[in-house]
Amino acid sequence: LDEAAMNAARAHQDRLTKPRGALGVLEELSVRLAGLAGACPPPMPEPAAVAIFAADHGVHAQGVTPWPQEVTGQMVANFLAGGAVVNAFARQTGADVRVIDIGVRTDLPAADGLIVRKAAHGTADLTREPAMTPGQVRAAVETGIEVARDLVAAGHRCLVTGDMGIANTTASAALIAAFTGRAPEEVTGYGTGVDEATHTRKVQVVRSALERAGLAGRTGGGVGSGSGERSGGSVGSGSGEPVGPLTVLAEVGGLEHAGIAGFVLGAAAARVPVVLDGVIAGAAALAAAALAPDVRGACVAGHRSAEPGHAAALSHLELRPLVDLELRLGEGTGALLALPLVQSAVRVLHEVATFDSAGVADKA
Amino acid sequence: LDEAAMNAARAHQDRLTKPRGALGVLEELSVRLAGLAGACPPPMPEPAAVAIFAADHGVHAQGVTPWPQEVTGQMVANFLAGGAVVNAFARQTGADVRVIDIGVRTDLPAADGLIVRKAAHGTADLTREPAMTPGQVRAAVETGIEVARDLVAAGHRCLVTGDMGIANTTASAALIAAFTGRAPEEVTGYGTGVDEATHTRKVQVVRSALERAGLAGRTGGGVGSGSGERSGGSVGSGSGEPVGPLTVLAEVGGLEHAGIAGFVLGAAAARVPVVLDGVIAGAAALAAAALAPDVRGACVAGHRSAEPGHAAALSHLELRPLVDLELRLGEGTGALLALPLVQSAVRVLHEVATFDSAGVADKA
Repeated sequence: LDEAAMNAARAHQDRLTKPRGALGVLEELSVRLAGLAGACPPPMPEPAAVAIFAADHGVHAQGVTPWPQEVTGQMVANFLAGGAVVNAFARQTGADVRVIDIGVRTDLPAADGLIVRKAAHGTADLTREPAMTPGQVRAAVETGIEVARDLVAAGHRCLVTGDMGIANTTASAALIAAFTGRAPEEVTGYGTGVDEATHTRKVQVVRSALERAGLAGRTGGGVGSGSGERSGGSVGSGSGEPVGPLTVLAEVGGLEHAGIAGFVLGAAAARVPVVLDGVIAGAAALAAAALAPDVRGACVAGHRSAEPGHAAALSHLELRPLVDLELRLGEGTGALLALPLVQSAVRVLHEVATFDSAGVADKA
Repeated sequence: LDEAAMNAARAHQDRLTKPRGALGVLEELSVRLAGLAGACPPPMPEPAAVAIFAADHGVHAQGVTPWPQEVTGQMVANFLAGGAVVNAFARQTGADVRVIDIGVRTDLPAADGLIVRKAAHGTADLTREPAMTPGQVRAAVETGIEVARDLVAAGHRCLVTGDMGIANTTASAALIAAFTGRAPEEVTGYGTGVDEATHTRKVQVVRSALERAGLAGRTGGGVGSGSGERSGGSVGSGSGEPVGPLTVLAEVGGLEHAGIAGFVLGAAAARVPVVLDGVIAGAAALAAAALAPDVRGACVAGHRSAEPGHAAALSHLELRPLVDLELRLGEGTGALLALPLVQSAVRVLHEVATFDSAGVADKA
């Protein structure tokens, strides 16, 4: 983050016709986005695009969700037809929608807005073997970087994460446990609405996956909480050899997590803000931050979902969510709700009059 | 609220392509707005208009704020020129801006968007005498009702409260203490940023005003907390004779509080949602709810401000704020940030596909 631009933004905020600091969290956000862009005011974060990374999960076989696996592909068709909640919220906020098939099991018919970049036809079952091969992870991360780069090249000035993947809250919980050192039962939630028996099984699945992969009980995981002092970004100061973030993704992640991690890296590289959605994005951002701690400067936590793992991820990333309304839908819906707040925060630096220009007396 | 429309909205939400309840607080909001309109889906809450009620306060003489009183009128000019934060947020969200001079001390030049309806040239000093006469309160409340009625007649389908008035957090604290029975020190905050000495004086001013008016220590104030069982809406079950809400407004309120209370009543009468801004709107809504408890069905709490009295008011009104970002600006800014969330909540009922229509499998 560019300190000069941040100081300029702070000084400008103090001249605007409002009490100093009166915009609270949005004032801090505007300063950070000035630092990200290296300019005050930073560019307006519009137009925005939400990129929905869709993939399937081998762990579905473990009975962690009541939803059939086919729903991943069916919901992709719904996104492309404009019928999902993410589409309604995108229309409300003026965001473009792109769907990236980064690993749906079935092959989907070509359609406007669909980008087919399968790194695999779904992951393997993470309780039995690594979810992805190293090559699959790399391909998925690279796809995410490229999607971000292409959207910025097409003129988008704000990126928004979205996801679709039946069973992906299970992989998210495993990733969050691995990166934050929290226990499986602390970070595993009810997802889209599982019953108690399924939740109990889900916690056990997460624990089994971490144990199989040698990622259990590694408290004090590798994402530097503050200033990137652990530049290697490895996991596992607790026991055994350090494990790299890409290996953690490969062991217990999903293809959409890898794609979103790349998307976050790509946004940060382009110095464009990326609004994170819920627990899937939070898990992916942990991976991205483990690879490159500075990416957190580009991340805006759109909301806090009802999933307990999401709060753990945001706390580890030191990000404060803008919206907190007990959503647990995913798709990018929570991030899109926050988009007008992000745009409003920046708009203040562009449009609001100063005490001098407006002829308003300052306080005594 | 229309129960049939609410049941229809609940049933429709359950058929949409998302897990049941996954939109959390927004789902409940969509159901309530269906009940308010008596239709499912309810009309989209757009276009929206923010009505900024501006007035001056005699209590300014007590040194409760470091801002000169002239700033009220100067900020009105800033609103009309489009240079304030409320204007930037209104442009971001597509809301129209109207300024109602309901009691600014100075006379302002005519301008587009300015509605001059002075009920007085500022209030009297509430520590020494009633802030308003009964006639002034009635005139201000009627103006608020008429402004709401006229905006709805002009096609607005969502109303948003705004306010401007140097020293108005002091009157807000006094109103909130009177209507909720809380102690002055619990509900008096730092406003636009006063120092400790001024804050101490402000608490004492609020206490003096309540004592002078015979409104001190009346715990368990008159707004029925739940179902309007106290239809009289009087304050003061604790001691002495009940006091009517208009008398409370006259004793310790502001002209903009009376105007906003009327605006809330007018919105509810038109069955149009009204998004409440911060502590001034919260205090005014307490008065409106004391007059007619059902108005709470039309009220959406846009945000929770940094003022402690605002949380007390929202708790008493049983409203959950949509945004919570430590704003303390007023003008309508916090409510405008929530406007896209309200619109998104209703848009879901209009646009999202059902499991049947989209060919998406439901959960097992």
